[in-house]
Amino acid sequence: MRSEELHETLLPKRLALPIFASDPLSSVAYATQEILLVLTLGGLAYLHFTPWIAAAVVALMAVVVLSYRQVVHAYPSGGGSYEVVSSNLGASAGLVVAASLLVDYVMTVAVSVASGVDNIISALPGLAEHRVALAIGFVALLTGVNLRGLRESGRAFAAPTYLFIAGVLIMVGTGLLRYLLGRPPVAESAGYGITGDPADTGLAGFALVMLCLRAFSSGCTALTGVEAISNGVPAFRKPKSKNAATTMAVMGAIAVAMFVGVTTLALVAKVHITDDSCRLTGLVGDCGSHTQRTVIAQLASAVFGGESSFGFYFVQAATALVLILAANTAFNGFPLLADILAQHRYLPRQLHNRGDRLAFSNGIIALALAAGLLLWFYKADVTSLIHLYILGVFTSFTLSQTGMVRHWNRELRDEGAAPETRRRGQAARVINALGAVVTGLVLVIVLATKFTQGAWLAVVAAVLLWLMMRGIRRHYDATAAELAAPDPRAELVRPSRVLVIVLVSTLHKPTLRALAYARAFKPDQLEALTVAVDREETASLERQWHELDIDVPLKVIDSPYREITRPVVEYIRSVRRSSPREVVGVFIPEYVVGRWWEHLLHNQSALWLKSRLLFTPGVMVTSVPWQLTSSARADHPAARAPGSVRRGEPPGGRAASPPAETGRGSEPEG
Amino acid sequence: MRSEELHETLLPKRLALPIFASDPLSSVAYATQEILLVLTLGGLAYLHFTPWIAAAVVALMAVVVLSYRQVVHAYPSGGGSYEVVSSNLGASAGLVVAASLLVDYVMTVAVSVASGVDNIISALPGLAEHRVALAIGFVALLTGVNLRGLRESGRAFAAPTYLFIAGVLIMVGTGLLRYLLGRPPVAESAGYGITGDPADTGLAGFALVMLCLRAFSSGCTALTGVEAISNGVPAFRKPKSKNAATTMAVMGAIAVAMFVGVTTLALVAKVHITDDSCRLTGLVGDCGSHTQRTVIAQLASAVFGGESSFGFYFVQAATALVLILAANTAFNGFPLLADILAQHRYLPRQLHNRGDRLAFSNGIIALALAAGLLLWFYKADVTSLIHLYILGVFTSFTLSQTGMVRHWNRELRDEGAAPETRRRGQAARVINALGAVVTGLVLVIVLATKFTQGAWLAVVAAVLLWLMMRGIRRHYDATAAELAAPDPRAELVRPSRVLVIVLVSTLHKPTLRALAYARAFKPDQLEALTVAVDREETASLERQWHELDIDVPLKVIDSPYREITRPVVEYIRSVRRSSPREVVGVFIPEYVVGRWWEHLLHNQSALWLKSRLLFTPGVMVTSVPWQLTSSARADHPAARAPGSVRRGEPPGGRAASPPAETGRGSEPEG
Repeated sequence: MRSEELHETLLPKRLALPIFASDPLSSVAYATQEILLVLTLGGLAYLHFTPWIAAAVVALMAVVVLSYRQVVHAYPSGGGSYEVVSSNLGASAGLVVAASLLVDYVMTVAVSVASGVDNIISALPGLAEHRVALAIGFVALLTGVNLRGLRESGRAFAAPTYLFIAGVLIMVGTGLLRYLLGRPPVAESAGYGITGDPADTGLAGFALVMLCLRAFSSGCTALTGVEAISNGVPAFRKPKSKNAATTMAVMGAIAVAMFVGVTTLALVAKVHITDDSCRLTGLVGDCGSHTQRTVIAQLASAVFGGESSFGFYFVQAATALVLILAANTAFNGFPLLADILAQHRYLPRQLHNRGDRLAFSNGIIALALAAGLLLWFYKADVTSLIHLYILGVFTSFTLSQTGMVRHWNRELRDEGAAPETRRRGQAARVINALGAVVTGLVLVIVLATKFTQGAWLAVVAAVLLWLMMRGIRRHYDATAAELAAPDPRAELVRPSRVLVIVLVSTLHKPTLRALAYARAFKPDQLEALTVAVDREETASLERQWHELDIDVPLKVIDSPYREITRPVVEYIRSVRRSSPREVVGVFIPEYVVGRWWEHLLHNQSALWLKSRLLFTPGVMVTSVPWQLTSSARADHPAARAPGSVRRGEPPGGRAASPPAETGRGSEPEG
Repeated sequence: MRSEELHETLLPKRLALPIFASDPLSSVAYATQEILLVLTLGGLAYLHFTPWIAAAVVALMAVVVLSYRQVVHAYPSGGGSYEVVSSNLGASAGLVVAASLLVDYVMTVAVSVASGVDNIISALPGLAEHRVALAIGFVALLTGVNLRGLRESGRAFAAPTYLFIAGVLIMVGTGLLRYLLGRPPVAESAGYGITGDPADTGLAGFALVMLCLRAFSSGCTALTGVEAISNGVPAFRKPKSKNAATTMAVMGAIAVAMFVGVTTLALVAKVHITDDSCRLTGLVGDCGSHTQRTVIAQLASAVFGGESSFGFYFVQAATALVLILAANTAFNGFPLLADILAQHRYLPRQLHNRGDRLAFSNGIIALALAAGLLLWFYKADVTSLIHLYILGVFTSFTLSQTGMVRHWNRELRDEGAAPETRRRGQAARVINALGAVVTGLVLVIVLATKFTQGAWLAVVAAVLLWLMMRGIRRHYDATAAELAAPDPRAELVRPSRVLVIVLVSTLHKPTLRALAYARAFKPDQLEALTVAVDREETASLERQWHELDIDVPLKVIDSPYREITRPVVEYIRSVRRSSPREVVGVFIPEYVVGRWWEHLLHNQSALWLKSRLLFTPGVMVTSVPWQLTSSARADHPAARAPGSVRRGEPPGGRAASPPAETGRGSEPEG
């Protein structure tokens, strides 16, 4: 029953595909367009380079998918590129990957949302002037949903992703069939000419190559997110690695089919798109207010018969939805990476405690703020954002493939392995070496063509993150060294005497409970302490104390300026000075309230006092809570954190089922 | 020596005047202008009503100053209008005054800053387009200064206030002298005509009276801040009440002299000013971009020989500075009122603990945010803001004078008093009754003429504050009832058994110290508890525990999802369920760090766990701090709160000198 339950929560391939592939597949929505936008900088003539560039992208995708299938087999624990690089190329290189990936999560949100908004505007042009507001609204929506702790659900992902795949493939099939039948679809922009940008027209030799390389760099956005499956192997059903590798191959095939199909159809239908409407010729009306539709929208309109056809709205809706889901994957993927980095002490330790919602919330808010700022700054323009995107992806590709080569080198050094294993390892090494060389080459191309166009910002951000994470690790190491106990027995020596001081303001139930609990500890000395902030109240307290004949001495300290913290801290320090070997326990009665605004009305003094007392050596601070009836409202457990489905963790979070298997190293396959 | 020291920190009249009078005197900078702006709505012809309106304002000021001199004598404790009304007309009426005053503090900041910026722009017209940014910048500056805890200093106030008084009086004197010598100063706007607003031209009868009443209402801004001295009596040197009353009389005389002088000079120099530049006739150039200078600036320019004269810049600089200082008085006055309201439990209790900087900071930030929003919303336009200002002032004037009448009625009922005292009381009662009638009349006028122009917003804000404060008081009363112990002895019964649980993650110094301290308490049962979030770490801990042969059992609880809080809370609840009469003490080792960012890296789990444990009845939570070396950085006492000079409190804040005398009731005079 229990293992069946666990099996139920693990993902079958048909659900894993949409969860992990919504990000890489959704990039089909903008990859072709970005290639065309660069080529038309030189005018319409350069569009004939499109097939070659698309072919290069497809070849690259094949190499990357093949390479990552090796990662899936070799590292079934789901550590992904960061784990591969850390364990094979060292911690600093691993940290480079981690920083790149963190930047990439931000870019995934920004680019996917911007492109989603573009496709919404293509269907509803009236929204064009609200582009930035829409984009930031979607980021806010995703933030809210993820802060609420909504779990990713395979089913919720499945429908939009499959509808997107089906919609695009049907569109491509219909369009190409019409082409073969001699009635090719004609894009709305087919009649426009494009004047090249003066800087990029009439290029030859090196300059022409550079333009093509820029187009290729932009087309490489089709590869973003391909590695997602390698991070999620533990979420697959058994045999995990094999199922993950199969899913990866299927995803690669679908991505290639969609990308090739859309690109071919764009050429067939003569989509003429440019980064500046004012370079279009043959335009009716003012170029400044002309909004070009996305390539997907132009194709859907041309194939399905105009902007009011069902097919057009269907494709646009599915595209926008899948892009928003792709953005959501970053909200789920970010905590997973942060978790691992926190475990290695490169990020605050609490990110490793999954039950701590607060820490996750901070991560989600940081991600959303960064993405929102970029969307605002770049006016939600996909093309500008793309420049920042690809660098991190290829940094992690290159380093992880290089790491895999090292991995196989080490594996093959073990001469005792079976010949079949050795042969498989050698083949894998060739694949990964090819992957490393090719992605490294692309990295250089991207760096060369995109650096000045905005990629420098991504580099700066990654470097800062890298420095910060190294700093955090150093701080943790220094703290650990300071806290280490070379002689634990000496630290365990019992203090000679304990003095307990109970803080008292009025004689209500919380105070009386604190007194009762303090007496239960039977300290060597017990006293009650009150600060005379109000003469009348203090006099009344002393009277009551006397009447009740409480067997604990009540000490009153003066506070001319109605401060509480300073006189108490000074008194306790003076006690400590006069008998340094004594330990002082300060008991503070507190009320526990349930409504957020009640916190503003209570316990502020106690909170401040506690935080100051902690600075005094030899003092321990005890909160004695008294639960007011309203406190029951707030007594609920923490919700689950995002990213759990990707981890293969069962729902509910109660300790009902055993933890998902997360062993390291190679997994034997069935 | 000590009493001499105390005497030193109390304010001599020459320093008290600038501290308390910068607010009322600074309103001279805009009161005349606001009268003119209303009258010119009907065209230039109506300017001949100016002397009558100014005379009414002066008469009103005389009545109010005389009335408040009675308050100063009768209530030397400095409670001001709130205290007078609460103790004579009841708590609800007192709360109305409090709400009005809180709104007024916001308006003081907004109006003073807006007028200050106006006078800066009059000297440096290039800044005109940055009006709102300048105003919000000044609010931010004042906020920063007050958050830093800079103490108000009599000396810092003295120079600008006296320079302002001197500057304006010299300007008035020179101008009137030139008039007497037959060479009257001529304002730059003297040549312009003014077309009346169609709605307000050719008025007669009731409509004309209403226009004059509107002008009078606007002119009443001259009275804002007059009551400040009555709040600050404890800060004066002895005989406090007499010195305060004298200072008040001097302030009133100066205010009247300045107001009458500026108004007379404005008529002599023919300052033609209107709320809409496009109603000016004879203007060269575009009326939309024409900026009218303030009345003060036009007069200074006309008297001292143009806009590049030293006199002009001097008057403008002094005016702007005194207006910014006036805004600062709200930052100092607000905490004083909040302090008293918190003492009466109408505001969060911590506002009454003066040492708690955090609470003051919240108040300062709330004040700054509200003022900033108003400045932004009303584009830093003095005239629009003035509409919201005067209502609260006159609400508190009217209620406090009415309260004073009741006060004297009660005093005079005591027939045993000396005849001289009775005569003085009877005279005072007449003055206060006159004050109540006159200010009540003005309140009705202000309400009738300003309500639809923006004053409704001030009414709504005051009503909301009033409801909030009543709600807070009710909550405190309900809590007090719930916490009251009808049978204190029963609550004091010692628990039967104490179980202490020490939370352990690794065996470093903080953990060992927590263990040692827990043992010092000699509980009935002691155990160590660890959560197995990481198998290796847990195994290593168990090994060390065994090797060290620690005589405390180590209990390991599983946490499949690496949560800490939930398993611990559930374990402790299960312990409590199985033995409800037992008390559980949870000891949590913590490190104390000094840098703000270190808090992000440490103790987050402990913090969260503590906050959850407090919801479990029968549990007390003990923090055992370990001070890291960096903690010394943050171990400094809280700074003094703003408003202390007004209270007559000595600097430094250490309990070196006794508290300032704050006795209630009448003070015998020397």
